[in-house]
Amino acid sequence: MKNKNWTTHFAHRTSEMKESDVRALFAVVNRVNDDGTPQVISLAGGMPYVQALSTDVISEVQTRLLREKGGVALQYGSGQGNDALRQQITEIMKAEGIQADPENIIVTTGSQSGLDLLSKMFLDRGNVVLVESPSYVGALGVFKSYQADIEHVYSDTNGINPEALKNKIIELQSLGKRIKFLYLVPNFSNPTGYVLPLERRQQIIEICDQHDILIIEDDPYGLLYFDSPPPPSMISIGNPNNIVYLGSFSKTFAPGFRTGWVHAPEDIKRVLVLANEAAVLSPSEFNQLTISEYLKHTDWQTQLEYFRDTYRERRDTMLNALDEVLPSLEKTKTQGGFFTWLKLPENVNSKLMLPEAVKHGVAYTPGTAFYADGRGKNELRLSFSYPQPEYIHSGIRLLGEVIKNEKSK
Amino acid sequence: MKNKNWTTHFAHRTSEMKESDVRALFAVVNRVNDDGTPQVISLAGGMPYVQALSTDVISEVQTRLLREKGGVALQYGSGQGNDALRQQITEIMKAEGIQADPENIIVTTGSQSGLDLLSKMFLDRGNVVLVESPSYVGALGVFKSYQADIEHVYSDTNGINPEALKNKIIELQSLGKRIKFLYLVPNFSNPTGYVLPLERRQQIIEICDQHDILIIEDDPYGLLYFDSPPPPSMISIGNPNNIVYLGSFSKTFAPGFRTGWVHAPEDIKRVLVLANEAAVLSPSEFNQLTISEYLKHTDWQTQLEYFRDTYRERRDTMLNALDEVLPSLEKTKTQGGFFTWLKLPENVNSKLMLPEAVKHGVAYTPGTAFYADGRGKNELRLSFSYPQPEYIHSGIRLLGEVIKNEKSK
Repeated sequence: MKNKNWTTHFAHRTSEMKESDVRALFAVVNRVNDDGTPQVISLAGGMPYVQALSTDVISEVQTRLLREKGGVALQYGSGQGNDALRQQITEIMKAEGIQADPENIIVTTGSQSGLDLLSKMFLDRGNVVLVESPSYVGALGVFKSYQADIEHVYSDTNGINPEALKNKIIELQSLGKRIKFLYLVPNFSNPTGYVLPLERRQQIIEICDQHDILIIEDDPYGLLYFDSPPPPSMISIGNPNNIVYLGSFSKTFAPGFRTGWVHAPEDIKRVLVLANEAAVLSPSEFNQLTISEYLKHTDWQTQLEYFRDTYRERRDTMLNALDEVLPSLEKTKTQGGFFTWLKLPENVNSKLMLPEAVKHGVAYTPGTAFYADGRGKNELRLSFSYPQPEYIHSGIRLLGEVIKNEKSK
Repeated sequence: MKNKNWTTHFAHRTSEMKESDVRALFAVVNRVNDDGTPQVISLAGGMPYVQALSTDVISEVQTRLLREKGGVALQYGSGQGNDALRQQITEIMKAEGIQADPENIIVTTGSQSGLDLLSKMFLDRGNVVLVESPSYVGALGVFKSYQADIEHVYSDTNGINPEALKNKIIELQSLGKRIKFLYLVPNFSNPTGYVLPLERRQQIIEICDQHDILIIEDDPYGLLYFDSPPPPSMISIGNPNNIVYLGSFSKTFAPGFRTGWVHAPEDIKRVLVLANEAAVLSPSEFNQLTISEYLKHTDWQTQLEYFRDTYRERRDTMLNALDEVLPSLEKTKTQGGFFTWLKLPENVNSKLMLPEAVKHGVAYTPGTAFYADGRGKNELRLSFSYPQPEYIHSGIRLLGEVIKNEKSK
């Protein structure tokens, strides 16, 4: 029996599911020397520094969990997620000033899965999704995989410009386009680190209300502020019926448990639970209960403080190194989260420069990854969350050399 | 700001995502008395008996994992899944006589997620999926959520009838229908417990080869045989380029870790990894490493024997009780897995009878759940995997009373 070419059987939507052209390069980035030190300093990924967690504490939590509730933890769970955890999630949301109802919460396999399920629920081919400029690469990938038209709204260092949003909506609607939602990360955005000011939040909520646009507020970094908390979340100042909120334990606890959540109004929640069941039957009960027991038995707020201190120090190291090595380049003076965004000289293309940077021993994510329309050539994302401060400093020095070489070409 | 009706914004496909009409009833089934005993004996779900696992052993495995590899286990992983686990999966597949390559394996959030991602990759609205009669309810739900036309192929107690399959394909293709794949559970099928004999496996492979139909072989129960192993898996006797194989740790280990896998030819694998990344970024590294270390450090084959012994005893109890209480009804003489399939008298409707059964203290899954075309009214699925033997016996006695009452109406 001969081999068939099954690619001719693929659904239309797979034509939008493409490998990143820097994927192969990132495989190189993960190589380590014999002594365990990295061959390349990666400022590319957005990995949390999970080494800041106590594995002994997690072990204790899990050992007790297995002893006391093993029969539940090892079993299938509910499509909406564990009841106790959903209750605890409302307390975490309260820490961000949000009044949430456990009935409106659906636990998902990371908030990425929440975004995937919402996209499956809302997006027909050719529907429009409005996003920031630039926007989170993982979200763009999901929207494309459902064949959405991604429309970037003009943004500045304060995030989406409300006037531009309004004009974009009017323009698209006048062309007969069906806008399904606005997706944004108002707090310490990925990739830019920008924060949307309160006034803009209010204006954007009002504009979306006027034009019947659902808002998807993605908030993985809100609790990871370094100086003062960000402005109130959009769901807390708007009508929670018109805003879907995504939360995550990947940055405040650990991504290895793939646990996030969606807070959605009743009509959306009901279908979202069915979508969750179709996708995974139920999210991992073991991981949900690990997090639930961890929140119950440990001082997670002190742990959160420790994460903040760790990331603040790394942010300082990165911004100081950038001031020292590349003082003339515009960058985000990040106040929380994992990232800063760097604007390069006009003649420096961050994607074309990447192989050279990796050869020099440093990696970053080219700006083009965060735009659906080919922009971002002279921009790049730097992450300070994972490497130790000394590596961050060396990494920025190496980057400085590469950019200087490139400029003088 | 007033509440909007977001259901008008839903994608077309959500019209196929419907709540089961017995859903509300199953909420009642899970109620327990004050002493912890169940109010209703549930023969409905397909839950493995995870109490057969040693939680001490799992605790030890996880404690060591966190101590030795905590930084990896708590972190994001790869979209294809952990390398070590993929290697170990090839050994498990070898136990079923399959020569597998770790490069062709993608770890997914349970095999349900594998099925969801494959559906996303292959199914445009109106494409046809061929399935057994009856077929796994969770698979039907996924196929519907991508707006596929589900076509049941005539099956008997030996599973799909090859002649009927051939005729169905010719008929559908002559109508211009686009058949994307055949989905089947050849070993101890859910819901019927049927086993597809070797000769039929060969015939079905040949028919699908002739007509360019991809086969998706779902095999969660293959290692859970009670008497002798089932015939060789389809991927081991056919061309592995033309067969996608789904495996799961939910039945041989624990569903609480939501870890399964897909073995797929290169062209399919490459896009499946991208689909996995879009859906969840990476499957839970903690859960993958828990399973990897469990397989490495424990005698999982002895555990598997223990599962077989447990389920064999429960199968015996159920079949004997059915012989005693309902001797005239046709049922599967199940030789592995979790289920038997019961055919009721013509005038007894299993869905209409369910509220009465629950009132009597026993639950099952009505046959209609396993057909996309409304059939199955006089059939029902019984699961023996979870309840203790004494409950199985009582449950079948209660079911006998309910059926007798119903028959005499």
